[in-house]
Amino acid sequence: MPSKAPYGKLNIAIAGLGRMGKRHAKTLLYRVPHANLVAVCSTDERELQWAREFFKNGDKKAEIQVFDSYSNMLELPGLQAVWVSTSTNVHAPQTTEAINKGLHVLCEKPLSQNLDEARAVVDLAKRNPQLKVMAGYSRRFDASYRDAKEKVERGVIGRPFVVRSQTCDLLDETGFFVRYAAKNGGMFVDCCIHDIDLSLFFLGNVVPKAVWAIGTISHHPELAALNDVDNGVGMVEYWDGKMAYFYCSRTQAHGHDVATEVTGTNGKVSVNVHPHSNNVLVAGKSGISNEVQPEYWERFEDAFATEANEFCESVLEDKPVPLPLELGLKSLEIGWALQDALLSGKTVHFDQEGKRLDDRERSKL
Amino acid sequence: MPSKAPYGKLNIAIAGLGRMGKRHAKTLLYRVPHANLVAVCSTDERELQWAREFFKNGDKKAEIQVFDSYSNMLELPGLQAVWVSTSTNVHAPQTTEAINKGLHVLCEKPLSQNLDEARAVVDLAKRNPQLKVMAGYSRRFDASYRDAKEKVERGVIGRPFVVRSQTCDLLDETGFFVRYAAKNGGMFVDCCIHDIDLSLFFLGNVVPKAVWAIGTISHHPELAALNDVDNGVGMVEYWDGKMAYFYCSRTQAHGHDVATEVTGTNGKVSVNVHPHSNNVLVAGKSGISNEVQPEYWERFEDAFATEANEFCESVLEDKPVPLPLELGLKSLEIGWALQDALLSGKTVHFDQEGKRLDDRERSKL
Amino acid sequence: MPSKAPYGKLNIAIAGLGRMGKRHAKTLLYRVPHANLVAVCSTDERELQWAREFFKNGDKKAEIQVFDSYSNMLELPGLQAVWVSTSTNVHAPQTTEAINKGLHVLCEKPLSQNLDEARAVVDLAKRNPQLKVMAGYSRRFDASYRDAKEKVERGVIGRPFVVRSQTCDLLDETGFFVRYAAKNGGMFVDCCIHDIDLSLFFLGNVVPKAVWAIGTISHHPELAALNDVDNGVGMVEYWDGKMAYFYCSRTQAHGHDVATEVTGTNGKVSVNVHPHSNNVLVAGKSGISNEVQPEYWERFEDAFATEANEFCESVLEDKPVPLPLELGLKSLEIGWALQDALLSGKTVHFDQEGKRLDDRERSKL
Amino acid sequence: MPSKAPYGKLNIAIAGLGRMGKRHAKTLLYRVPHANLVAVCSTDERELQWAREFFKNGDKKAEIQVFDSYSNMLELPGLQAVWVSTSTNVHAPQTTEAINKGLHVLCEKPLSQNLDEARAVVDLAKRNPQLKVMAGYSRRFDASYRDAKEKVERGVIGRPFVVRSQTCDLLDETGFFVRYAAKNGGMFVDCCIHDIDLSLFFLGNVVPKAVWAIGTISHHPELAALNDVDNGVGMVEYWDGKMAYFYCSRTQAHGHDVATEVTGTNGKVSVNVHPHSNNVLVAGKSGISNEVQPEYWERFEDAFATEANEFCESVLEDKPVPLPLELGLKSLEIGWALQDALLSGKTVHFDQEGKRLDDRERSKL
Repeated sequence: MPSKAPYGKLNIAIAGLGRMGKRHAKTLLYRVPHANLVAVCSTDERELQWAREFFKNGDKKAEIQVFDSYSNMLELPGLQAVWVSTSTNVHAPQTTEAINKGLHVLCEKPLSQNLDEARAVVDLAKRNPQLKVMAGYSRRFDASYRDAKEKVERGVIGRPFVVRSQTCDLLDETGFFVRYAAKNGGMFVDCCIHDIDLSLFFLGNVVPKAVWAIGTISHHPELAALNDVDNGVGMVEYWDGKMAYFYCSRTQAHGHDVATEVTGTNGKVSVNVHPHSNNVLVAGKSGISNEVQPEYWERFEDAFATEANEFCESVLEDKPVPLPLELGLKSLEIGWALQDALLSGKTVHFDQEGKRLDDRERSKL
Repeated sequence: MPSKAPYGKLNIAIAGLGRMGKRHAKTLLYRVPHANLVAVCSTDERELQWAREFFKNGDKKAEIQVFDSYSNMLELPGLQAVWVSTSTNVHAPQTTEAINKGLHVLCEKPLSQNLDEARAVVDLAKRNPQLKVMAGYSRRFDASYRDAKEKVERGVIGRPFVVRSQTCDLLDETGFFVRYAAKNGGMFVDCCIHDIDLSLFFLGNVVPKAVWAIGTISHHPELAALNDVDNGVGMVEYWDGKMAYFYCSRTQAHGHDVATEVTGTNGKVSVNVHPHSNNVLVAGKSGISNEVQPEYWERFEDAFATEANEFCESVLEDKPVPLPLELGLKSLEIGWALQDALLSGKTVHFDQEGKRLDDRERSKL
Repeated sequence: MPSKAPYGKLNIAIAGLGRMGKRHAKTLLYRVPHANLVAVCSTDERELQWAREFFKNGDKKAEIQVFDSYSNMLELPGLQAVWVSTSTNVHAPQTTEAINKGLHVLCEKPLSQNLDEARAVVDLAKRNPQLKVMAGYSRRFDASYRDAKEKVERGVIGRPFVVRSQTCDLLDETGFFVRYAAKNGGMFVDCCIHDIDLSLFFLGNVVPKAVWAIGTISHHPELAALNDVDNGVGMVEYWDGKMAYFYCSRTQAHGHDVATEVTGTNGKVSVNVHPHSNNVLVAGKSGISNEVQPEYWERFEDAFATEANEFCESVLEDKPVPLPLELGLKSLEIGWALQDALLSGKTVHFDQEGKRLDDRERSKL
Repeated sequence: MPSKAPYGKLNIAIAGLGRMGKRHAKTLLYRVPHANLVAVCSTDERELQWAREFFKNGDKKAEIQVFDSYSNMLELPGLQAVWVSTSTNVHAPQTTEAINKGLHVLCEKPLSQNLDEARAVVDLAKRNPQLKVMAGYSRRFDASYRDAKEKVERGVIGRPFVVRSQTCDLLDETGFFVRYAAKNGGMFVDCCIHDIDLSLFFLGNVVPKAVWAIGTISHHPELAALNDVDNGVGMVEYWDGKMAYFYCSRTQAHGHDVATEVTGTNGKVSVNVHPHSNNVLVAGKSGISNEVQPEYWERFEDAFATEANEFCESVLEDKPVPLPLELGLKSLEIGWALQDALLSGKTVHFDQEGKRLDDRERSKL
């Protein structure tokens, strides 16, 4: 079990150096004072090349080691924690391996697309309570979502009972998204999962009763072969008279448009209903306009830094992780139910303990 | 068949002098230059009393007659048209009677809660093509909705394929709403019908494929006995890969919050996503705030005047009514399917001609 | 002295059928139930032609007479009031003539560019207290300005002491504005006068202490010969520690942008800081945008109707006019001081009674 | 002359540990990867106490030395740069001393309230071109202001010619502000200086022609003895037909309200016209509201980090400082002219080279 770092720093490594892995490396270097980035790994030669270059002339030259093997990296003496930022299909085995090595883990969401696999990781983490294991749902670390949550808890809107949430991405014309889609589990498991998580965040300890979803393909015909859509709408009925409904899209023209509204018995709190990339307006012949963030990174960059800071703090101060691991499981169950409803056209029902009532086996699992 | 009025005025009467009937009387008097209000009727003694008083000292004293019988009013010599503004259960018989007397009819939506009855009125109107018969969906006459529609038709957002629309009313603490609810057909038939109609307005000639709805009671427990809810969410899948989803509420704290967003392949157009009663902002210790219209009347007063003006013009100029009567039928079919889904918990399916596939008979019909 | 109209209608005539005169005719016909438009006059043959055509087939054919002489029109039997909507240089003589005929007068602002002439009209009106004489400042009849005023009076912002107000017009590329500018008195007398009036509206009974103004010509070089500018900024210090500052422009790219902010000791109320023509937003590749009203007419059409309704009511009910005639005088004094400061580059000072301290005679007077 | 730091880090010290000095220490530690904070100094015992405590258990314990003498701190071996964050009256002597020691300097604005003293520092810096000397105007490092500037430079609004800018602070009820006011030079020198600087930023290389200012005291009567106001409005006419006008306030109820609008011949770009602390809206019985940042720190925290990063980069990469030192001089000249106009009631004029034409000596200089 890792001891506290000298001077309150956590020795942490990053697994995976894709788009997000690179960003996480910079976040740890420049925005997480209590993190001490000691290693990175990847199996992609271009990513390794980037790392050797980036860390060579950088200000941390001597300290950051570059590995081409995850297992080897975990053997690094003094290593205390790992940030798993690889593709979803290896999240669970890598998290498992790290726990078994006695390392703390911050894992990108989701733990796994496979519910049984995800449950196994949660169980393993429970059996290792001395380790901090967290799956990152970045929106929970966003200042606006936290302010909204604080207001809800303070009773500003009375009892919350309806959540509307949408995750609408800018249309990707590079083809990156479609390649990525092949292994992401589908619209409601990969994208809507954030909105589902927000419904749990705002509605409290709710249990799903029934879900339905519909969707369409507007721009990416290749998705049909993947049993997926690029625009989908879903609803979740919770057992205690609460409701959530979602819109997810991969094809927005104007940018990353992520909005949430929470309606209560005495008011409504909303987050980012009119998205804007900064405080600038332009008035011209076509009216008055503002620009919109192109991607979730611009919208949630600060949230990722907060997440990393709080994860480090939870380890160094031995406090509970800010986001219990089990929550990801619940979101995933609802996400799969929505995805199944989308494909089958049928509603999916749950009993009062949240257990699915249909005996149909989901083909992907 | 009525001839053109001298000086281009339409002799019109109003049936029903409830809250809306009174407003329509003033609209016709003060905001519809080509209308000549000649008579009103009611069976409610207080309403009749109001009318006798209101028209006595008014500027139209000699011209406006007050009847306590709808049938008698229809006999008034020179009468050309009637605006049916009574309670929903008599819309169809009154419209039928007026058509049979050779009168043009502007009927409050919906024609009927009973689909067969509504279809019968549509059929009767088709057999009387010389008469203008219209059911009013006020939002189609609102300047913002029309601007949005014009933009959609101009291709500003590409091909429209998702509609989000909500009708959220201020919480009524007087008890008026619950009394009214007893005969309005339920959330999706009475309230959501406008949102359904807007999805048809923006998506074009679409056919429903499947619907589902969920709901809850947050403030009005009396609704349980009426098989109704005070907050509901519904989704409609249309056959050609288009979708609509709706939120209806009777319990908003902040005012009348009616918003619509239309997403297309190349952009999004939205109406009233941040409602405000006027152009005023107040900055003070708790931040910056704007007020919201309390009711649909403040939001749509101008739309009702436009509706009345265009109806009069369609008669006087013998042009098609601005809103075909059959459209109301389609909205009503979808509204009933949503209401049935709400009660049964099951999705309702339609074939490609829009015919419902379930053999269950709806109890109310 | 006019008696009350039968059925509560005021027999009113319009002088001048330019752009605004035509609009006023329609306002009286269609939006002022207690007005009875009986005559119009113009000396412009095209305007007369328009009137003969417009009223011929209209719904008021028999009642509205068209005159080519103002004096002749005033002789029309039964005439009670006249709406003076001619060019500014004849406002004062026409108002004077009407008062002398015993007619009520609603005069477009300003009464005159010439202060002495304006004062003479005010004096004449005072000597005829049985007549309602009003100069129209349309913004005082706008629903948002009234709401803001009501909030200020209710103490929502504490004691108001700073007003920012701007009148920014869409760039006129037709040349109309420059032709009009030749006889309008200049930026601060013609355009800023509304903002000055709003500072009086919100700050209460204030007396000017000193003013200064600067300006530039960005688009209309012809204005140099008229001693005028197309963009100007001015400040007014009032005697009791209150202040107002103004921006006026004739050259906006995006539309009619008229905004006002009132700062008080305990808050701020603002009107139309983000102008929008309706409730529609468009999201597309360049962000999210709204359109802006092109002209003051779209922004203040309802206010003109309210103004006309309230003027008629003040006559018919023999109540004070909603806007005392003297107020226009005060705005005009400040407007001329700003215009003089603009031309001279010097501040203009007033004593505590509001009397100008410079002995320089303004060339235009 | 300092050499490049090993691993690209700049050894920097902070002078002054007041509210901003403490913040700068954290900024350098946590948000400026290429800064190596090596020392801090203060003459205030409580600040020294804070520093000893803060750095003792922190993660930088061994490295950061705490001095009670500025001169002693400058002797620290390896020190390359100093961030002067003391009170304004010692900015100039401390900057001078650091330059004379061969150190780079990032000095809080303004260099001095005394123009001659400020000019002397600028001259000294010019004679030491190997040193980077910069006075920080934080708004120039704000993402929104930079986006606005980029748009202006790209021609989005045509030729810019009018700037409106306001710096409106939340009312300080603790008395801190009034104590601070005694040595800050007055409203237009201390507060409006940012707005003046923004007018130079957006309008380009402009020369003042004439200025005037007015002001009032609404909440802080103690300011009268300091010849200052708590609300002021000022205008600057530039020689080439450009204009700027400003509103500064210390007494806002709703928060830190800093807004700027730049009008050009073909459009307008604005920054922060509707301030909001985050993306959250609350809808409730009193309407829809957002909160506002309480202070400039919440609004400009990121800008300070950017400023520090770019200053470090300019030293380490030997590039020009992002903000030429002379610009502060020009703002200061205009600020003093406005302050003098406020006190004298007279306009202040400049010749075409920007030299003041009045021979009156400003009492404070």
